Amino acid sequence: MSVGEVTNADAALPPLRVGLLGLGTVGGGVVNVLTRNAEDIARRSGRRIDVVHASARNLGAPRICPLNGILLTTNPMDVVENPNVDVIIEVMGGMTPASMLIRRALELGKPVITANKALIAHEGNELFALAQAKGTVVAFEAAVAGGIPIIKAIREGLAGNRIEWLAGIINGTGNFILTAMRDEGRSFNDVLAEAQKLGYAEADPTFDVEGIDAAHKLSILAAIAFGMPLKFDSVYTEGISALKTEDVRYARELGYQIKHLGFARRHENGVEMRVHPTLIPERRLLANVDGVKNAVLVWGDAVGPTLYYGAGAGADPTASAVVADLVDVARTLTADPNHRVPHLAVVPDQVSDLPILSMDDIQTGYYLRLTVLDQPGVLANIARTLADFGINIEAMIQKEASDETLHLPIVLLTHPMREAIMNDAIESLQALDEVCAPIVRLRVESLVS
Amino acid sequence: MSVGEVTNADAALPPLRVGLLGLGTVGGGVVNVLTRNAEDIARRSGRRIDVVHASARNLGAPRICPLNGILLTTNPMDVVENPNVDVIIEVMGGMTPASMLIRRALELGKPVITANKALIAHEGNELFALAQAKGTVVAFEAAVAGGIPIIKAIREGLAGNRIEWLAGIINGTGNFILTAMRDEGRSFNDVLAEAQKLGYAEADPTFDVEGIDAAHKLSILAAIAFGMPLKFDSVYTEGISALKTEDVRYARELGYQIKHLGFARRHENGVEMRVHPTLIPERRLLANVDGVKNAVLVWGDAVGPTLYYGAGAGADPTASAVVADLVDVARTLTADPNHRVPHLAVVPDQVSDLPILSMDDIQTGYYLRLTVLDQPGVLANIARTLADFGINIEAMIQKEASDETLHLPIVLLTHPMREAIMNDAIESLQALDEVCAPIVRLRVESLVS
Repeated sequence: MSVGEVTNADAALPPLRVGLLGLGTVGGGVVNVLTRNAEDIARRSGRRIDVVHASARNLGAPRICPLNGILLTTNPMDVVENPNVDVIIEVMGGMTPASMLIRRALELGKPVITANKALIAHEGNELFALAQAKGTVVAFEAAVAGGIPIIKAIREGLAGNRIEWLAGIINGTGNFILTAMRDEGRSFNDVLAEAQKLGYAEADPTFDVEGIDAAHKLSILAAIAFGMPLKFDSVYTEGISALKTEDVRYARELGYQIKHLGFARRHENGVEMRVHPTLIPERRLLANVDGVKNAVLVWGDAVGPTLYYGAGAGADPTASAVVADLVDVARTLTADPNHRVPHLAVVPDQVSDLPILSMDDIQTGYYLRLTVLDQPGVLANIARTLADFGINIEAMIQKEASDETLHLPIVLLTHPMREAIMNDAIESLQALDEVCAPIVRLRVESLVS
Repeated sequence: MSVGEVTNADAALPPLRVGLLGLGTVGGGVVNVLTRNAEDIARRSGRRIDVVHASARNLGAPRICPLNGILLTTNPMDVVENPNVDVIIEVMGGMTPASMLIRRALELGKPVITANKALIAHEGNELFALAQAKGTVVAFEAAVAGGIPIIKAIREGLAGNRIEWLAGIINGTGNFILTAMRDEGRSFNDVLAEAQKLGYAEADPTFDVEGIDAAHKLSILAAIAFGMPLKFDSVYTEGISALKTEDVRYARELGYQIKHLGFARRHENGVEMRVHPTLIPERRLLANVDGVKNAVLVWGDAVGPTLYYGAGAGADPTASAVVADLVDVARTLTADPNHRVPHLAVVPDQVSDLPILSMDDIQTGYYLRLTVLDQPGVLANIARTLADFGINIEAMIQKEASDETLHLPIVLLTHPMREAIMNDAIESLQALDEVCAPIVRLRVESLVS
């Protein structure tokens, strides 16, 4: 069956009905992701997931998402109390009225999904107790490190480990600023102004640049890593606003990068939690996490170091985490517990027997090494042959002949090309008189991160 | 309540009883991790997890783990059919008799946890159908990328995304060989022999160096990323045994690293799956995954690129993944579905109110920048002051005076020291006559990866 087909899996059960508190950047992202990936999400959840009711402060404001079929209100409590809403997503941010709305939803036994790190850091202990008492749940994957599934990794993926420590770059704004200070030698204030213009930093940047946002997130990570209550007030917090460009420069001279790190470690006699600018040896993975990206390094006694990297903020990445929580909730409410997560990620009757492409049809860049006779015109012949097949050369190394045979290696990188064409081109190259050994062919992937 | 205390949470329910097929490296690791972390695992699962019955080919062979209280047999079917065994862990490897044993366990409705990538790649489709029909599950986190929770990340953490492609270094042996070929300029055969001596490669290395092991894993990753059946036979597979040291060197000259990559991408008209040596630009994260480590880069349409990094093999890392699956199973069998994963990772009455250390008690390295008068003896005074506090200097930069005031910066890195002592030392340094501006202090973490 093809991916798009509607089948009994999503037809059999009524859709899960979502109430959305907040239609700003993250709320808009959630609607977009749920709309765009509706079919894949239904295949994974075993039912459709529809946003049916949403609140916004200003109904006339411009939106980044379609609102078809969504009932709108300026009163978020209407959404919470709507008996036709099964699950609440809170993406308004701030403490008030988010706290009161979430409490009411939990009282009603409705699962709540939130991206609100400040609220979880400050009130998580009570919210979790309330959810537990009411037989429901508060999900908060989106509260830490945006789209990186770090909560799930720690609470579930590393559940066999004693977690010894974790260290994270968990504020994208701060990392953007530090990266620009390093790469462009600019001052903190100068880069902050740019970050504000680009929308990476708020008009009031205090939470980001004074480390408060990172401390919120660190208190959440430490709590789940060590199985202890949230203790935001105990996090030692130092921001990056006092950091000088010259210290960034001196650190580099010493072989270090300065990153704004959240760090938590378990000791015999207690736990340390701290957020501050930190020098990290330049070869470490965390030292190479740049710009607005986030990453968390977790040390478990069995697994050793593991690292989780990705986008720490933004509409779609945060929505990715919100929707992951939503699929978790939908699976819990839909599948029998033993089959909550389908073996192949989608419910069995939705597995798609996708065709597999032949290697002839893949497209990639190529590295070619030719061993040729050291004589005039050889390079021209090679280049012309490749050009005949429409293959562009991106880089080349020509070496001196390595022995008395006057054989010399020519190494080429090509732009991406279909493999079938490259195979023909290699055959033609191999047939050239000057080519005197089998051509070595490797593939090149530029990747993105 | 303290971490170690026995409380009603693990006392209330009888332990989950595990049957273990295979007591080699991975089996021994599983017993070790379950033994060492028994309390943490019980806090997370809501009940104890005990290995009660295990099979091994040779009962007299030396073991890496304690066997106290475990009933031993040479007949694995005894373990499968033991009515006092609730869950089966299969870590024997190979197709026969693992396949038959797993099928029997599923027939009996027992959840099966396996690290057997070859078996999942070849027979997963039937095993999953059988598990589904019998109301139980086959869990296989350990089958791909060792301790990295990549199956969970893709099936659950990225469930909101349309996954476009993924690329992974998913064979530790191959990556160890490539790293040594690059760093030491040695030939494939030379490094392979060393890897075999170190236990990183098997006596018959075919599965690792010809890419078959990576193809097994790629077929699993692609199936769950795209929601399609396992199609191992359709993976284009090329190993690293033909790779020449000179190509590794030329790739570097061009700004690339050669990695043995598994790559899967979804297209309009089908899916590509291929495993082969691949040139990757040297700045990419995957290009910097060295030695026996694994990493998988996954591109989701909402989240963008995310990366998962860690140990891809070894007794304890593989056990980490097996036990994560076991905790998943235990939570499913123990908690009500809405509270399968506790908010704070451990069941509510097991949350430990751990003390938080004062910053005075933390220990870290320090970066100090002092602005001093350019006069004789200043450096000696600084060094003597630090020595008085027992603080060792690891590195130093002294710059020329930057203006007419004859003030010059001295930058120091220290070995780790308690913060309280460092605070006192900074106070003493600040009091030196030659120090003419507030001392800048940053912290240093060496991390490990």
